[in-house]
Amino acid sequence: MRVGFVGLGAMGRPMALHLLRGGHALAVWSRRPESAQPLVDAGAMRCPTPAALAQWAEVVFSIVTTGADVEQVVFGPQGLAEGFSPGAVFVDMSTIAPATARDIAARLAARGVDMLDAPVSGGEAGAIAGTLAIMAGGEAAVLERVRPLLACFGPRIVHVGGQGAGQVAKACNQMVMVGCIEAVAEALHLARAAGADPARVREALAGGSAGSRVLEVFGGRMVERDFRAGVEARLHHKDYDILMQDACRSGVPLPVSAQVWQQLNALMALGGGRQDSAALLRVLEAASGASSRES
Amino acid sequence: MRVGFVGLGAMGRPMALHLLRGGHALAVWSRRPESAQPLVDAGAMRCPTPAALAQWAEVVFSIVTTGADVEQVVFGPQGLAEGFSPGAVFVDMSTIAPATARDIAARLAARGVDMLDAPVSGGEAGAIAGTLAIMAGGEAAVLERVRPLLACFGPRIVHVGGQGAGQVAKACNQMVMVGCIEAVAEALHLARAAGADPARVREALAGGSAGSRVLEVFGGRMVERDFRAGVEARLHHKDYDILMQDACRSGVPLPVSAQVWQQLNALMALGGGRQDSAALLRVLEAASGASSRES
Repeated sequence: MRVGFVGLGAMGRPMALHLLRGGHALAVWSRRPESAQPLVDAGAMRCPTPAALAQWAEVVFSIVTTGADVEQVVFGPQGLAEGFSPGAVFVDMSTIAPATARDIAARLAARGVDMLDAPVSGGEAGAIAGTLAIMAGGEAAVLERVRPLLACFGPRIVHVGGQGAGQVAKACNQMVMVGCIEAVAEALHLARAAGADPARVREALAGGSAGSRVLEVFGGRMVERDFRAGVEARLHHKDYDILMQDACRSGVPLPVSAQVWQQLNALMALGGGRQDSAALLRVLEAASGASSRES
Repeated sequence: MRVGFVGLGAMGRPMALHLLRGGHALAVWSRRPESAQPLVDAGAMRCPTPAALAQWAEVVFSIVTTGADVEQVVFGPQGLAEGFSPGAVFVDMSTIAPATARDIAARLAARGVDMLDAPVSGGEAGAIAGTLAIMAGGEAAVLERVRPLLACFGPRIVHVGGQGAGQVAKACNQMVMVGCIEAVAEALHLARAAGADPARVREALAGGSAGSRVLEVFGGRMVERDFRAGVEARLHHKDYDILMQDACRSGVPLPVSAQVWQQLNALMALGGGRQDSAALLRVLEAASGASSRES
């Protein structure tokens, strides 16, 4: 199968490499030409425009930053839409608003192009290791056609529903993850204030009913006071912007997530946007009048 | 070692049985005499009063409901304090306020009695299986003396700090657990409202960075809409009363936990106090105008 890949950043580059290693003929395009070089060196074909890539490929993947980026790559000048033939499949793996994903899918459907929204969880480490979790929205038959390709990115591929449902699942993933990060931050902040050792409290909680991947990873960063990203808080802040606006439009009250969003806001205000979201602990310390040890 | 056990409810009864099975000579006392019968049948000695039990035992465990219950059992008429000899050890495994635990410890220390606060996580199922997690506060040397006895209740025993630190860790455990339950409830509520299948969203999140024991257990109950306790929400509500008052006294702002507390309040108002805390989902549905399927 002739496969195209658009967006070769921290996530896209290792994912595209997995396709090459899987033996697939690969064409690539990236806004910054230098991003494509490692792929070209590994055997991929460099395309001059997204349109040229879409003309050649049967299946095109994209992973870029915002919904506007996806729209630009698809419907902008010399975009994918100019090159797609009817029967092509477009799989967007970016994290964007469900409504934007549905809108793009509808416009592509009018041209006979099938789309899946298939955002991922697992971060750069998961992209490199090929262990991403993939949440796919769209038609089941389309997913089955591209499943062998998606399997190059990670073993867990769940079909969560129709167009946009993958993005909904990703929003849920972020809500649960950051909600848990905040709960762990508040617990460890209380522990320290109340005279218990946060490292031992984290240890006591691990493996019990409060145990989680977040307690292990982000709780560990809090205990070590290592706030290097990891996952930059500004990206979680962006995800909450999307999901809270979406919830607001749909009339879905999310009282605790709204408060978590405000804590991410406060971390941005503290200049922590490029720190790890474990730095939500710093917001609590600032509110307690404790001077944070990190600037 | 001569061991005493006070409080033979859903938690205490199986825990005391593990001591007997471990080959320890055991004396028991319970407010309701019938609660002691299974222990007596299994070989324990029934004491007429806590004072009589404390006179005989070298180490006394208790697990009752509230701080007032612990004070009554220790300092009430014919309480443990009347029977303790200097050098005795008292291990309270109830979930109570850290300040109350510290106060009782100080009053017992004046009589030469050592105390540990050692609340547990894992619930009735963990008590029966002997897999409780134990969070101990007090002197390390005292913990070492009773560690072989505590090991009868579960393999994970963490010394988190001085007097009251065990209760602080338990508060942290509850904050993280219920905070995660609420985050999962909001995510699955949003999923359904946005047209994604909550069961598949839960499946897509499991094992990834949002994965947790809460997502598995409580998320599963939400998907199945099985709100039978489990852990009764009124007990979590009680725990939040303790920890939020404690945080307030200590000047520790916990913005998200405060909101979670209000959601538990709302669940109580909906008549869900004896349902599982997974029923926090019902609060969101009620706020969305969706009629809850459960009364």
